[in-house]
Amino acid sequence: MDSIKVFSPGSVTNLSCGYDILGFCLDKVGDTITVTKTSEKGIKISSIDKYNLPTNINQNVAGIAAQAMIKDIKLDYGFDIKIKKGIKPGSGIGSSAASSAGVVFAINKLIDYPFSDLELIRFAMEGEKFVSGSYHADNVSPILLGGFTLVRSVKDLDIIKLPNPKGLIATIIRPEIEIKTSDSRKVVKSKVTIDKMVQQSANLAAFISSLYTEDYDLMSNSIVDEIIEPDRAILIPEFYNIKDISIKSGAIACGISGSGPAIFALSKNNKIANDILNKMSSHFNSVNISYNGFVSIINSEGVKVID
Amino acid sequence: MDSIKVFSPGSVTNLSCGYDILGFCLDKVGDTITVTKTSEKGIKISSIDKYNLPTNINQNVAGIAAQAMIKDIKLDYGFDIKIKKGIKPGSGIGSSAASSAGVVFAINKLIDYPFSDLELIRFAMEGEKFVSGSYHADNVSPILLGGFTLVRSVKDLDIIKLPNPKGLIATIIRPEIEIKTSDSRKVVKSKVTIDKMVQQSANLAAFISSLYTEDYDLMSNSIVDEIIEPDRAILIPEFYNIKDISIKSGAIACGISGSGPAIFALSKNNKIANDILNKMSSHFNSVNISYNGFVSIINSEGVKVID
Repeated sequence: MDSIKVFSPGSVTNLSCGYDILGFCLDKVGDTITVTKTSEKGIKISSIDKYNLPTNINQNVAGIAAQAMIKDIKLDYGFDIKIKKGIKPGSGIGSSAASSAGVVFAINKLIDYPFSDLELIRFAMEGEKFVSGSYHADNVSPILLGGFTLVRSVKDLDIIKLPNPKGLIATIIRPEIEIKTSDSRKVVKSKVTIDKMVQQSANLAAFISSLYTEDYDLMSNSIVDEIIEPDRAILIPEFYNIKDISIKSGAIACGISGSGPAIFALSKNNKIANDILNKMSSHFNSVNISYNGFVSIINSEGVKVID
Repeated sequence: MDSIKVFSPGSVTNLSCGYDILGFCLDKVGDTITVTKTSEKGIKISSIDKYNLPTNINQNVAGIAAQAMIKDIKLDYGFDIKIKKGIKPGSGIGSSAASSAGVVFAINKLIDYPFSDLELIRFAMEGEKFVSGSYHADNVSPILLGGFTLVRSVKDLDIIKLPNPKGLIATIIRPEIEIKTSDSRKVVKSKVTIDKMVQQSANLAAFISSLYTEDYDLMSNSIVDEIIEPDRAILIPEFYNIKDISIKSGAIACGISGSGPAIFALSKNNKIANDILNKMSSHFNSVNISYNGFVSIINSEGVKVID
């Protein structure tokens, strides 16, 4: 195989109760990445279709992840990367992770799978580190493993694939503003009280249980964030109104996706998810805020070969 | 029925990763409580066999829980309570909770079950509040529900019964010193960094997953406490040596039970659990510290009628 095209989807992280460690894989949106073997060694990014992203491999997450991957293996060829961005950077649904994870997944196929999923996560995290300043696996894990994932430890690279309850479906809406992950991290307080920690971790623990038991009432009560959301919500126009609309329309839960500004809602079925999208859209229209929204299943497979 | 005798077991809480919210029910030790209807209305504690505990119903956790329970119901009789303590107060395996939970469970049977398990937990928590200064359901929940429990919210009384993996068995050892819960709470810091919170909650989330999947390697990696244990361990003689011995002898994990001084270890089978008990005992013998230890299954049923 000399060339491969993959679809690397977006992802939703934090899910209110699992800051920095919880995520799920989207299906509807993502980057389309073509990687072709070249006679010239090394990595080259020959095109990125939009958003004015750097093609310099030392300034681009995909280039950084790909270099980390091939650094210690002996190859007598190189790779050309072409990226069609399906996710706008700074949107909160893992734009950088889609590029990093997609590229390492594609190269791994081209060189006949020497690396495990966990190793791919480690390489993709190099891209995440470049863009956010620290190692995070919460976006790249669901892209590479599919479904819901929990990052128990970045240091030990201990990542758990969680159940993906049938029928669960996401509504995503993003007001047209950009929030840089690094900026959004700055508003997070550096310390929390033990009481808040206990409350937040109880919600996370209950959410994990709800995925196994498909108890949507428990899930609804668990997707709560009294630590990060109050600070980050300030950066997202109409957040509390959108959340209110979602819950009143039957969402299991609604919160900030990643570091925002995208907002996610989870619903029991497609009808409710689309109804929520319509009502969210109407609201943003009524207040004259541009937005972009869609409904997506939780993608169990993750990144995949499309050509 | 005019009289009932119940066995109300001990419980292990915190389990390193679930401070204040996680617990499991022991089987081997507990209080034996006899409640008898009396023509005189109200609650009376006619005997407690040891530890010099108060029989004044306003100074005793069982009396306080029982009063909370019957406060709003009309009865033309009262109750006499006799308690045989099987758990020493201040040992870290839920001595007060066993008395509170056992008494409300017994009275509920005598008055033909008007209250749900959750309501019984609420009444039993009144005893816990008296003894520790705040409402906690982490000990009383596993006693009343059996197995492993998670307290998502004390305020909303949202309590989840978790799976109880077959074969999982506990070793408990308690050096003969007393730690008051209220004293042990004082050494806990009031704030933690977000990083520590993320790490601790990731461990808790992974532990919940491990109960559903019976993944003992994950369980072992998850029962970790970098927040509370380092401060509380100072109060418990030989804690780190006992922990080291347990892990080297094949324990899945070892940590402080509740607020200590009891130490718990979890093992995959009875043989390992007993081997650990023997080695822990030898160690305490070698350093001339009195102790009390036993092996117990995780009790799925909780408090039960014995006569």
